[in-house]
Amino acid sequence: MNFIYFCDLFGTLVFAISGVLVAIEKKFDLIGAIIIGIVTAVGGGTLRDVLIGETPVGWMKDLNYLYVIFSAVPLCFFFQKTIQKLRKGIFLFDTIGIGLFTILGLQKTLGIGLSPLVAVMMGIVSAVFGGVIRDVLTNEIPLIFRKEIYASACLVGALVFLGLEYFFAGAFSNIPIAILVVIIIRYLAVMRNWGIPFEPKTW
Amino acid sequence: MNFIYFCDLFGTLVFAISGVLVAIEKKFDLIGAIIIGIVTAVGGGTLRDVLIGETPVGWMKDLNYLYVIFSAVPLCFFFQKTIQKLRKGIFLFDTIGIGLFTILGLQKTLGIGLSPLVAVMMGIVSAVFGGVIRDVLTNEIPLIFRKEIYASACLVGALVFLGLEYFFAGAFSNIPIAILVVIIIRYLAVMRNWGIPFEPKTW
Amino acid sequence: MNFIYFCDLFGTLVFAISGVLVAIEKKFDLIGAIIIGIVTAVGGGTLRDVLIGETPVGWMKDLNYLYVIFSAVPLCFFFQKTIQKLRKGIFLFDTIGIGLFTILGLQKTLGIGLSPLVAVMMGIVSAVFGGVIRDVLTNEIPLIFRKEIYASACLVGALVFLGLEYFFAGAFSNIPIAILVVIIIRYLAVMRNWGIPFEPKTW
Repeated sequence: MNFIYFCDLFGTLVFAISGVLVAIEKKFDLIGAIIIGIVTAVGGGTLRDVLIGETPVGWMKDLNYLYVIFSAVPLCFFFQKTIQKLRKGIFLFDTIGIGLFTILGLQKTLGIGLSPLVAVMMGIVSAVFGGVIRDVLTNEIPLIFRKEIYASACLVGALVFLGLEYFFAGAFSNIPIAILVVIIIRYLAVMRNWGIPFEPKTW
Repeated sequence: MNFIYFCDLFGTLVFAISGVLVAIEKKFDLIGAIIIGIVTAVGGGTLRDVLIGETPVGWMKDLNYLYVIFSAVPLCFFFQKTIQKLRKGIFLFDTIGIGLFTILGLQKTLGIGLSPLVAVMMGIVSAVFGGVIRDVLTNEIPLIFRKEIYASACLVGALVFLGLEYFFAGAFSNIPIAILVVIIIRYLAVMRNWGIPFEPKTW
Repeated sequence: MNFIYFCDLFGTLVFAISGVLVAIEKKFDLIGAIIIGIVTAVGGGTLRDVLIGETPVGWMKDLNYLYVIFSAVPLCFFFQKTIQKLRKGIFLFDTIGIGLFTILGLQKTLGIGLSPLVAVMMGIVSAVFGGVIRDVLTNEIPLIFRKEIYASACLVGALVFLGLEYFFAGAFSNIPIAILVVIIIRYLAVMRNWGIPFEPKTW
């Protein structure tokens, strides 16, 4: 369990860094960078908690999440160049993050007695809506609507996890396997430029 | 009651279809179309539930709403042309939808003991904020701020319903009459190009 | 306590007026002006209440807030010119408003047992997110990300208030002193064009 907690914090850090980098690009000031870092890192989980009624929202009850997010600001300030060079490596951690956020969000939703369909949706919301809220606040059309390399990978990962839980309920390996599926799908999606265009037949 | 439930589901379908059509126009992909369909259909009721503290929000407890919304995607995919031809007919169902959403939102808010003024506001939020959130996510200025053919009709319908409930508490005909008022006002507003401009006197 | 309640209502009025003035600039209609007035005035406190789980949100339980907000519409309609001339005076009341909103939001959050760090954040959210939501709805990049004359002043005021409460718990003067700090900092920030740019070293 400690390992999962560590991964969750690390995923939060990676998300916060990606938010702060966007703020730098947009020439926001310090307060703007902090807000965008927070929103990107915990926005998805916050929206999930609000929708399923688990308030006060999660990060208010465990300050480690905030400490990790705040540390993203000096990290980006001093090591921006290095971080941008490491982008490929970060890509991996980022994907571990979205995979883990999906599964943890799914588990939390199941845990309060909601249906698996809703749990899968809330898992995806946990993983991708931090980015959506960031895009809305910075006046961009959310990337996810055009080129969803994230959401489909989360969806498949969530379904694999539900299947594993059905057959091997509570097995520790279920989470890593589901996350691995997310990583593989996203990797393939980026490599082969996958997409699911939606161009209706015109009958 | 079954008839009202059916109308509620049907209104949800019409709203979801209108959202998916916007996603097609904007060239979103499949995931984008599904998200915009969900947001348009249940965004208003979700915001209402979150504000009045009725969480988990309504559609999480009755999956029929999600099934209806998901069915909007293949419907738009295969019958886009037909649907666009039927727009005038859809206009009617759409207006029935906003009328019904207004009254059901109002009733739910009254039911947890909040004041009629707040109930009227939450009725309007239920009916129109799905569209507002859709517009925000797709980076448009919400139409409702410029040309509110919706919100005023909902307001009058809500007031008529409150008046009917005052004199004929619980009468089954109160809901259809209030919805009819919404339909008539919106029809007249569109026909005669009504609006309530807000251009201050410059004293 | 009555004095603080009066200031809270007055701050709400000033915020609502500033929202309605934006709606006039953007040529919104009457409904749009009312919605933007409401969102600007109570959006921050509403977001705070939703995040900390204090629902139904505050303004639903005391209609005076709504009455004050609605009165902003005729005020702006009849006295737009006068109000714009009074802008400098309004600047003062506006700053009293954000100072008070910060402290009241902080107190409310502490009151339900959350940590001081979260309370400071929720104080700032109470004071500035009404404006952020207004900017998002009107399709602007929130000003606060670029030029935060607000948020830093709120932050310092909140910290001063926490310090005062630590040494003089419950003293009535704590709130006015903290608000005075907010006013002074914001005044200096505007006068001397302060800012905290965030331009990473490129190591």
